[in-house]
Amino acid sequence: MGIRTVEEYKKSLRDGRRVYLRGEKIEDVTTHPILGVTAETVAQGFALTASEDPEVRNLFTAPHPKTGEPINRYFITPRNTEDLMMRTKMIQRSIELTGGLPFGRDIGTDCLNAAFVVAGQMGKKQYQENALNFLEQARKNDLAMCGAVTCVKGDRSKEPSQQKHPDYYLHVVDKTKDGIVVKGAKIHITSAPVANEIIVVPTRQMRENEADYAVSFAIPANTKGIVFICRGGRGAWTEHEFHPDYPARELTEAMIVFDNVFVPWERVFMCGEWQFSMLLAYTFATFHRFTAISYKVPAVEAMAGCAVAMAEYNGLEKVGHIRDKIADIAGYVETLRALTNASAKDPVMYAEIAVPNPLITNMAKLHFAGKYHEFVKLIQDIAGGIIATSPDKKDWENPDIHDYLEHYLGGSARYSTEERLRMIHATQRMLCSHEAAFHEVTTVHAEGSMAAQKMMILAEAPLKRYREMAKRSAGISS
Amino acid sequence: MGIRTVEEYKKSLRDGRRVYLRGEKIEDVTTHPILGVTAETVAQGFALTASEDPEVRNLFTAPHPKTGEPINRYFITPRNTEDLMMRTKMIQRSIELTGGLPFGRDIGTDCLNAAFVVAGQMGKKQYQENALNFLEQARKNDLAMCGAVTCVKGDRSKEPSQQKHPDYYLHVVDKTKDGIVVKGAKIHITSAPVANEIIVVPTRQMRENEADYAVSFAIPANTKGIVFICRGGRGAWTEHEFHPDYPARELTEAMIVFDNVFVPWERVFMCGEWQFSMLLAYTFATFHRFTAISYKVPAVEAMAGCAVAMAEYNGLEKVGHIRDKIADIAGYVETLRALTNASAKDPVMYAEIAVPNPLITNMAKLHFAGKYHEFVKLIQDIAGGIIATSPDKKDWENPDIHDYLEHYLGGSARYSTEERLRMIHATQRMLCSHEAAFHEVTTVHAEGSMAAQKMMILAEAPLKRYREMAKRSAGISS
Amino acid sequence: MGIRTVEEYKKSLRDGRRVYLRGEKIEDVTTHPILGVTAETVAQGFALTASEDPEVRNLFTAPHPKTGEPINRYFITPRNTEDLMMRTKMIQRSIELTGGLPFGRDIGTDCLNAAFVVAGQMGKKQYQENALNFLEQARKNDLAMCGAVTCVKGDRSKEPSQQKHPDYYLHVVDKTKDGIVVKGAKIHITSAPVANEIIVVPTRQMRENEADYAVSFAIPANTKGIVFICRGGRGAWTEHEFHPDYPARELTEAMIVFDNVFVPWERVFMCGEWQFSMLLAYTFATFHRFTAISYKVPAVEAMAGCAVAMAEYNGLEKVGHIRDKIADIAGYVETLRALTNASAKDPVMYAEIAVPNPLITNMAKLHFAGKYHEFVKLIQDIAGGIIATSPDKKDWENPDIHDYLEHYLGGSARYSTEERLRMIHATQRMLCSHEAAFHEVTTVHAEGSMAAQKMMILAEAPLKRYREMAKRSAGISS
Amino acid sequence: MGIRTVEEYKKSLRDGRRVYLRGEKIEDVTTHPILGVTAETVAQGFALTASEDPEVRNLFTAPHPKTGEPINRYFITPRNTEDLMMRTKMIQRSIELTGGLPFGRDIGTDCLNAAFVVAGQMGKKQYQENALNFLEQARKNDLAMCGAVTCVKGDRSKEPSQQKHPDYYLHVVDKTKDGIVVKGAKIHITSAPVANEIIVVPTRQMRENEADYAVSFAIPANTKGIVFICRGGRGAWTEHEFHPDYPARELTEAMIVFDNVFVPWERVFMCGEWQFSMLLAYTFATFHRFTAISYKVPAVEAMAGCAVAMAEYNGLEKVGHIRDKIADIAGYVETLRALTNASAKDPVMYAEIAVPNPLITNMAKLHFAGKYHEFVKLIQDIAGGIIATSPDKKDWENPDIHDYLEHYLGGSARYSTEERLRMIHATQRMLCSHEAAFHEVTTVHAEGSMAAQKMMILAEAPLKRYREMAKRSAGISS
Repeated sequence: MGIRTVEEYKKSLRDGRRVYLRGEKIEDVTTHPILGVTAETVAQGFALTASEDPEVRNLFTAPHPKTGEPINRYFITPRNTEDLMMRTKMIQRSIELTGGLPFGRDIGTDCLNAAFVVAGQMGKKQYQENALNFLEQARKNDLAMCGAVTCVKGDRSKEPSQQKHPDYYLHVVDKTKDGIVVKGAKIHITSAPVANEIIVVPTRQMRENEADYAVSFAIPANTKGIVFICRGGRGAWTEHEFHPDYPARELTEAMIVFDNVFVPWERVFMCGEWQFSMLLAYTFATFHRFTAISYKVPAVEAMAGCAVAMAEYNGLEKVGHIRDKIADIAGYVETLRALTNASAKDPVMYAEIAVPNPLITNMAKLHFAGKYHEFVKLIQDIAGGIIATSPDKKDWENPDIHDYLEHYLGGSARYSTEERLRMIHATQRMLCSHEAAFHEVTTVHAEGSMAAQKMMILAEAPLKRYREMAKRSAGISS
Repeated sequence: MGIRTVEEYKKSLRDGRRVYLRGEKIEDVTTHPILGVTAETVAQGFALTASEDPEVRNLFTAPHPKTGEPINRYFITPRNTEDLMMRTKMIQRSIELTGGLPFGRDIGTDCLNAAFVVAGQMGKKQYQENALNFLEQARKNDLAMCGAVTCVKGDRSKEPSQQKHPDYYLHVVDKTKDGIVVKGAKIHITSAPVANEIIVVPTRQMRENEADYAVSFAIPANTKGIVFICRGGRGAWTEHEFHPDYPARELTEAMIVFDNVFVPWERVFMCGEWQFSMLLAYTFATFHRFTAISYKVPAVEAMAGCAVAMAEYNGLEKVGHIRDKIADIAGYVETLRALTNASAKDPVMYAEIAVPNPLITNMAKLHFAGKYHEFVKLIQDIAGGIIATSPDKKDWENPDIHDYLEHYLGGSARYSTEERLRMIHATQRMLCSHEAAFHEVTTVHAEGSMAAQKMMILAEAPLKRYREMAKRSAGISS
Repeated sequence: MGIRTVEEYKKSLRDGRRVYLRGEKIEDVTTHPILGVTAETVAQGFALTASEDPEVRNLFTAPHPKTGEPINRYFITPRNTEDLMMRTKMIQRSIELTGGLPFGRDIGTDCLNAAFVVAGQMGKKQYQENALNFLEQARKNDLAMCGAVTCVKGDRSKEPSQQKHPDYYLHVVDKTKDGIVVKGAKIHITSAPVANEIIVVPTRQMRENEADYAVSFAIPANTKGIVFICRGGRGAWTEHEFHPDYPARELTEAMIVFDNVFVPWERVFMCGEWQFSMLLAYTFATFHRFTAISYKVPAVEAMAGCAVAMAEYNGLEKVGHIRDKIADIAGYVETLRALTNASAKDPVMYAEIAVPNPLITNMAKLHFAGKYHEFVKLIQDIAGGIIATSPDKKDWENPDIHDYLEHYLGGSARYSTEERLRMIHATQRMLCSHEAAFHEVTTVHAEGSMAAQKMMILAEAPLKRYREMAKRSAGISS
Repeated sequence: MGIRTVEEYKKSLRDGRRVYLRGEKIEDVTTHPILGVTAETVAQGFALTASEDPEVRNLFTAPHPKTGEPINRYFITPRNTEDLMMRTKMIQRSIELTGGLPFGRDIGTDCLNAAFVVAGQMGKKQYQENALNFLEQARKNDLAMCGAVTCVKGDRSKEPSQQKHPDYYLHVVDKTKDGIVVKGAKIHITSAPVANEIIVVPTRQMRENEADYAVSFAIPANTKGIVFICRGGRGAWTEHEFHPDYPARELTEAMIVFDNVFVPWERVFMCGEWQFSMLLAYTFATFHRFTAISYKVPAVEAMAGCAVAMAEYNGLEKVGHIRDKIADIAGYVETLRALTNASAKDPVMYAEIAVPNPLITNMAKLHFAGKYHEFVKLIQDIAGGIIATSPDKKDWENPDIHDYLEHYLGGSARYSTEERLRMIHATQRMLCSHEAAFHEVTTVHAEGSMAAQKMMILAEAPLKRYREMAKRSAGISS
């Protein structure tokens, strides 16, 4: 088939998977008030590949490298800067076109691309073939997939083997002729409840005595023993908010429990090769942070736009300190964009696979995460307290008080009160809501904490070169 | 009466006031799902003054300066450092004792204290008497009151008289033998829908041609022409969250519309004396920011405690970068505490009234607001992504998945999973919820924006002294 | 000739120019204790083009576009990313190869390249020819040149025409058949006293009534009426410091007074076209900030190296908070490098001329300037107080106390005390000396202040795009 | 005598001490170009106590607690807030009155006060008596003293006993009936070469196996075996700078080598009591940081004054972003002042001795050190590049170019060019000179690094209280 329709995708989710949310078991994720929004959000990725607009279709699909048949472009393993730039562009355009982030293949292929790199470095042909076969299956069946990386970790000061029980990190508990049995739980897994396949990679470097924890594989979401426990999200628009003319978009994370799950050998990409667990975690992190910095660009552009618009609606766009803050806001956004592009333009090659520049990618992620709260503060400062205390759409519609709101909530005379109120609501959603706080936390923690980025910066930066330059200045021979 | 009971207070709110919330008219604010929580929160202030614990009662009540009868201590106009320190202590203890902020008199007396200062400076005996009589009425009837300061402002780049219509700032539209008629709207007014009285002061300095806007008065909440349009809040605890053993606490803001409201002369504290509008706005701001820095101390202490506790529950309390962050967190909290006390210890006297040190008060507010987002980031960083994606209490209670959660969501073995989950929920409420984002915005905007604090720092700091010192270093005679 | 020797260059500076320094008139700049070091530093640029190492020679020279004869590569007007990358590379390599910054053509060609762009936009053929003829002259005679941009400015709150006298900005005071007469003073002009030619461009946008101030030209340094008043610099190494095995390098700035200087028409690139003064100032700023961000990379690399080395020499390289600081240090350096390259890789084309990306260039400069002091603090923190109070080389050589120093000033046993002391001296030079403070100030002010960069970021960032994205999120049709 | 004259003090320095500077042995420190300035600076402390102005004399002297005879007030051991406030006031006034910091007893009594606290806690009467007797000697003979704390430390990752040799930390190498023999070197010791006495305390906590390193004593500067190796400073004003009408002031640090120095028992305050080394180091640090935050207030006031004045001289005092920066500058200065006063107003009592509040003192020091570079940047930004490249006084005096300078270096017409030039020179001295960079480093490192302050903040902040508040919010019983 190669390219599935939205309906085909949705139908594939009614497969008996075990999903819980807010204490209840969900029978059909596609029709649930919250998960239905998530399914619809991811489904937009299928709408894009099936678009009638050739510009859109040609961006989101690509010819299969061998057969030439159209496949989803995320299934193109990047071989050069152009492929990486296309990935960035796809991510950014998908947000622009759908109003949300149809994360159905991004993180899964971040895992898979890392698995390819590592399989190549391990020199284990079987793993390479397994990964390639799985990719072909994904291309052919146009599979939605999530990437399951972060283990629950228990006591963070202890290694996997020192924990109260061995299951705080996912591990192999049995091996048979046909496959392996794994146990553990992965947490914070984006879009997991609406994926067809789960790609698992280790959450960190493993040591020799942790070989059972060095495991990577792909597994269908409805496999026996797999349970999804989901975050409760916001769901659809409410009648109390002004909203855009497209449906609410949302991704939902889940904790995925692997309760002695069987994985056949042909789906295994690593099993015990602890020496390569570091490279796998590290390469995944690079691919994944590249995905992150790509999707954050349009996210922060829209937020920056709230500052620009609210300044105008409030009549403040020419005030010195407001302009100064907008310059800082723009600097934050454009530094992110420039570094994102730079990491694609200066890739590191592993055999034929192009990995985004790890140093620049990690700096971009750290830029984004480390300065996000300051960016938020600037926009909240410009927008005003009204984004916290604004009346809602039902107030506006109540004839008893409508005229008061119309009369008193105007700003610059160039805009109508309703227009201003709509912008207030959009700004509230992005900067003064549960989602706003949620994004602060995910900005800090998704794709690894800032400490993780600093670790990789230390590993990748040319510290020796710096030192040699200092020694030369000091007149010390090396 | 002097000291009312909780029930007397609640009964007084059923007075025919016009209140709207989420598009609906509220007939009884004390029983509404959201405003009932607000009423109960403010009612705690009455519970404290009626406490059977003498330590509590003696803190929150004081003898009337003349009659010796017990009155609410907020109605003591501060005359020295001790009075100011008592105000800080009352605010902080009320939070510790009730779990919330029973803001029933704080802001109202901030306004009233400012009105006293200004009436004294104006030398208009009638205004002084009006204010004093009103204070006696408040003392005698133990009134709950809100302070209504911020006008809706329209186009922020334009003076009141240049706006599309004259009502963006509250102003006098008529004067009669018996009183004045005012029109306009005040916004973001904390606890307004559950106050007995509204104290109005100008939102800013007014010029000569804006004399009608230089108006201050007190007015009962159910006066004809007054309409409250409230923010929709969170209301009571839900079954989805772990929560403490006291009820949810919440303050609700309202926009107050003054639709040609009549105010009798004996309730007027300023009417046309534009030359003193600056002093009134300025003195109110100082009193009010002092209130703010006082209540923020316990608020940020509890947030800091989430960082300390989560570090321990996650097993991270000895990690270098975590300790470094906790030092920064503590430094933020304790600098606020030290500056708050310092502003009480170095007051500025206006006749017999002690105003908290304006320079230190504004620096403390700017410290609090300017570095809050960084403080939030540090705690979110320590707490982990789990505060964003945590399962809820109903998940925990569902036997299908309870054991998975118990098994996988443990942290340091010194604590139970349930304990950790409870702390995760508390941290989520404070740092990853609608309220968390809401507090960021109010931190920036409540009690005036950071630009307002900088303006007062420039006015109060000894810039001339600095310059003279530099000139001396330069060998320039003054 | 095309390529001059060091001696030819030095000889050309003995041309009767009027130069003052520390209150004295300098007869021969090449032999003066301070200016001699400057002349020698710039002379290194000639040594590089005359290098016997073909890799070096081929980098710093290029074939003349028409004749194919070797010319200095700075005289190649950039036409694409590769030309811009070569400029960056030249600048960086020249520092690595000579230990200093042989700024003999960089800023001059920044001016000249901007003049080409503007002449093209003005459509005035004569100016284009003048500029081209001057470039040919420079290529042929291998001229050293400085760029004179910043006027002395008088009262910064006043336009040129409102000042106490008209000369605070350089302007045309007379025009004749043969040329123009200019008056004014340019300040902070790097390497001016050792340049052959001075290229003048306006310091800012000029208005219609300021047409006389919209003037650009090239003029030999020994022209009648030109006076150089130089900053006193540090000069050669002293016997009190450990130093590298190459001579001290230094650039010296001068105020250049134009005391009714005659400029022939064929040397004029703008005269009265005030409408284009903005584009000229703006384009110069972009070229020049690109030069700046290029040379800062090796400068801050060496400083970063002091942190890396001192951490090791002090035995602290594995301490958590030290590693954290080194990650921040590396992030600062590498963000600068990444943005510098990005600005070359995404140029803006004016006809055939490639201008470095103005948005990225300005962000890179702002990154560099805005965070430099924090970078300095981190290195000073790691290096320790010893860089402030270190004994000097003469102490080390005094047998009375040598053994004490050897015994007590050791650090990690892996390094000798002398090695540590040498690194302390290098770090002191870069981070605790007059030059260290001087570089802080020039970082902030050279190539325009941070306010200037913010102004250009506001002009170049896609604010409208941000706003449209916010409006779409708000459901507002554009 | 009680109070010595300047001449008596200077004479006392000609006592045979062994002093080296810039590789040379100094025979008379009072007449040396650099150390003479230091001696004169410290001598100002004697001028103040001998002042004919009773306000001055009464501030800097106090009646002996027992005899009532006038003694230097630094020799009053603080017993309450008032004593601590007087210490702050003395330090600040001495700078205002003399233009420098006459550090002749401050740090010595910081050590001695800490020794008193610790002797009391140890309960060793002999040490108490020794300290008291030494204090009486100091009072009687009006001794200048320095505090020697920081050891040279060798490899910072190693304990004293693990080092290449045992002498990287000062330690006892022999004990006799009459006294002890010590070996080691103390570094960065302010004003050491012009002190009469050296007070030694341990640089850090010592462990059980480091008892020999737990040693504290007082010793005359000319004792056999003591060698001073001094930093080369700037010395007197030069003819190239505009300067104030008082002499240049300077303190000079030294490394003090203790080459098997004999200390009689009656001068010993600790010897082997390693359990108390932490308390001694910690209490000294608190006293000393209190001294530091006191003297920094006038230091940063003068720097802030440069910003205020340069903004005016440049005509920029009304520009928005300049005012914003001045507000930040003032906030930095006044937060320091407020915290300094707060630490005196909330002391911790050890028996009868008042120790400045350790938490607030350390926060104040961290505020000062952590934000100093940003403060510097703001002032440099406002002052302009001219503080880097300004012509000097000899240029101004050269008639050839004087008129050019007068004509072109004017700023706001309200000030003369000479006045502006004088302020430029003062700003240059404070913000763009070797001293400017030197002060950055000492700001970070003097009185302990920022890591040391964070350690004490973690020890002193009420982390448990925070945690209990969070637990209450979480519904967790303690």
